Amino acid sequence: MSQPSWFTEAHEGSGSSIGYRIERLLHAEKTPYQTIEIYQTTDWGNLMVIDGCIMLTSRDNFLYHEMMTHPALFTHARAKRVVIIGGGDCGTLREVLKHEEVEHAVQVEIDERVTRLAEQYFPELCASNADPRAELLFIDGIRYMAECEPDSLDVVIVDSTDPVGPAEGLFNAAFYASCFKALRQGGILVQQSESPLAHLDLIRAMRGAMRSAGFHALRTLPFPQPCYPTGWWSCTMARKGADLAGFRERGAATKQFATRYYNAETHKAALAQPEFLREALGD
Amino acid sequence: MSQPSWFTEAHEGSGSSIGYRIERLLHAEKTPYQTIEIYQTTDWGNLMVIDGCIMLTSRDNFLYHEMMTHPALFTHARAKRVVIIGGGDCGTLREVLKHEEVEHAVQVEIDERVTRLAEQYFPELCASNADPRAELLFIDGIRYMAECEPDSLDVVIVDSTDPVGPAEGLFNAAFYASCFKALRQGGILVQQSESPLAHLDLIRAMRGAMRSAGFHALRTLPFPQPCYPTGWWSCTMARKGADLAGFRERGAATKQFATRYYNAETHKAALAQPEFLREALGD
Repeated sequence: MSQPSWFTEAHEGSGSSIGYRIERLLHAEKTPYQTIEIYQTTDWGNLMVIDGCIMLTSRDNFLYHEMMTHPALFTHARAKRVVIIGGGDCGTLREVLKHEEVEHAVQVEIDERVTRLAEQYFPELCASNADPRAELLFIDGIRYMAECEPDSLDVVIVDSTDPVGPAEGLFNAAFYASCFKALRQGGILVQQSESPLAHLDLIRAMRGAMRSAGFHALRTLPFPQPCYPTGWWSCTMARKGADLAGFRERGAATKQFATRYYNAETHKAALAQPEFLREALGD
Repeated sequence: MSQPSWFTEAHEGSGSSIGYRIERLLHAEKTPYQTIEIYQTTDWGNLMVIDGCIMLTSRDNFLYHEMMTHPALFTHARAKRVVIIGGGDCGTLREVLKHEEVEHAVQVEIDERVTRLAEQYFPELCASNADPRAELLFIDGIRYMAECEPDSLDVVIVDSTDPVGPAEGLFNAAFYASCFKALRQGGILVQQSESPLAHLDLIRAMRGAMRSAGFHALRTLPFPQPCYPTGWWSCTMARKGADLAGFRERGAATKQFATRYYNAETHKAALAQPEFLREALGD
């Protein structure tokens, strides 16, 4: 039996690293967009790595996927049409489809191989891919949003990699303007916004770009996510033509589907701003 | 100029690791109790490591120290006498002394060298050590609590290393019985209780031992802490002869001292139980 080794992501920007003890490499390939590796870990199930960056583990992805989805969908009165940009592992799509008010959910992932590998190595995340309300497209999300019918969507979820490489164009005012145009009044854009501790400048820049695209109500919600730098992550919600002051608390408290992190209490908790974040963002 | 290297703590129990990029080793010594190393990091200020385990960094210790202190002190009506078991870096002591209602705060650290090195490498944490209300003892905390005058304390904060080595005896019913006896009615014990994700069995065992020592009201409060395994940590509060349902929210909202994470909102947020934790602990 060989000694277990470790996969470690040394995150240059924050000067910190996170690693997992691995049993073996299950798969590695270079796609037209990126390099994808799948490892079997000793304690965290399977691990997906893209271009050296940890994307998800079987054990802790529920935190991210639930928090990228349910706060936005329980803030919107009745989200019928949802678009996910990125999200190729299908975990966000699965969470979105737990909401029975959703009539159509499109996942727009540029790299089909991410989804094909998720089907194989994270089948639980792909459990709802055959739902008749789901549509999986493997095209450029920036272009998709730019060409979207105006006033046609209720929620846009940007579930992307870090703002370098293919995802860079998902963090600027031009993209946010496309989202703004595509959303109906009261529609919500939600995007993963990195670590509140390590990426405060990025969060501020994102929020500035969202504002310049027409979004006036903004909230940044922190949540734990062990596999990402600092173990503390966030999503930022932006709303078109309405505020972000409350959510359907009763709906969240009586939801008819299972979650592992999200509930009405943790939703409220995510709206609480730590002192340094309140000072930095003014939420 | 030499290449920066990394200090990495591979946490065997959870199969995950956390590391920091370091400029250089500032100090290393073997005390009668443990091995202490201090590193200068590139992005996180100074880093203290004890027996290979990351204890704190200059940049993120505020999360832990504030959450170990203020929820308990804003739950207690008026904590006059506080004991800290462990806490040799003095960061918890500093937070405790921000409360003007505190008349006497004793820090009982077994290893004086931890405090002496904190004075040198984390001077900001030791800023209140000369406060006339502060008393620093370098003796065994287990024995100190066992010999404590009954019904004499308002809050006991157990700010210890992991439950192995010198700190092992701080996680059992005999120690909790000493704390229970030493606390006045309405008094609160608060102890660091590891990661909600990786150490659920430990949290359950701690809570069981606290109950068997006479504490009936228990709450486990999660909070982010990047430098500890999984980046997500917790403290567990136990109260003698009173419940833990509320806290002095108005006092927290109008507090006359600065914090960086803690405020009335994040206090409430820490009381929110993620779905899996609610199922596991029944809070």
